Amino acid sequence: MRLAMAEALKGEEEGEVPVGAVLVLEGQLLASAHNRSITLSDPTAHAEILVLREGGWALGNYRLEGAELYVTKEPCLMCLGAMIHARIKRLVYGAKDEKAGAFSAFSVDISRANHRFEIIGGVLEKENSEILRNFFKKRR
Amino acid sequence: MRLAMAEALKGEEEGEVPVGAVLVLEGQLLASAHNRSITLSDPTAHAEILVLREGGWALGNYRLEGAELYVTKEPCLMCLGAMIHARIKRLVYGAKDEKAGAFSAFSVDISRANHRFEIIGGVLEKENSEILRNFFKKRR
Repeated sequence: MRLAMAEALKGEEEGEVPVGAVLVLEGQLLASAHNRSITLSDPTAHAEILVLREGGWALGNYRLEGAELYVTKEPCLMCLGAMIHARIKRLVYGAKDEKAGAFSAFSVDISRANHRFEIIGGVLEKENSEILRNFFKKRR
Repeated sequence: MRLAMAEALKGEEEGEVPVGAVLVLEGQLLASAHNRSITLSDPTAHAEILVLREGGWALGNYRLEGAELYVTKEPCLMCLGAMIHARIKRLVYGAKDEKAGAFSAFSVDISRANHRFEIIGGVLEKENSEILRNFFKKRR
């Protein structure tokens, strides 16, 4: 999670919403990224999407079975959906996202998915929330 | 929608799940694509994601305000989420997806999103369902 947080701060330096993610397979770092929607003119370029794509290329397979994804913020609908497709083993996230989080805002029931995985939320929640809060405070 | 259906069939020829999408802005075709997850080793490479990314590059902006997305099948969580981020104006889809559709399988309430758009489902539903049914029949 600390690596994901360092990524989030890199994103902030680039003017992006500070969210960072890392993808791990069998204890090895497979990919790390931060949000890049603005820089890349790509509405899909969230940190989670970028690590899943990079992970797929690294393994030569769109299914990332056994992979664990760490992200500083609760995933949105798009990113949660991508994790289902990628068949990851575990999601670990930091701050809740009451406005756009797949769970907090849309009450997605993961048990309806054709692939289910372990989900652990609220890791380093206070620090992760603060990264986002600081960013939005400065932007106002 | 006919263009999206032609894209779906191109996908099938490549061994992908036959789903096609086109993105239109002010009556002009901005992008067209079919699913390419297997070919690209990319869990996010659904037709809808590919046209949104291409559209963003074409306009130099991750927000695709005014864009209309046509897709042969009801979008999954990932693709619906991407449309929210891209701020499209209208989604038109064909076949329902009871297994993985954001509406049919996950009951997503779009009114909770920070961007809402018009959604028209069931367009050429019979033909669009048949494209998918034929594909899965052959694979069994």
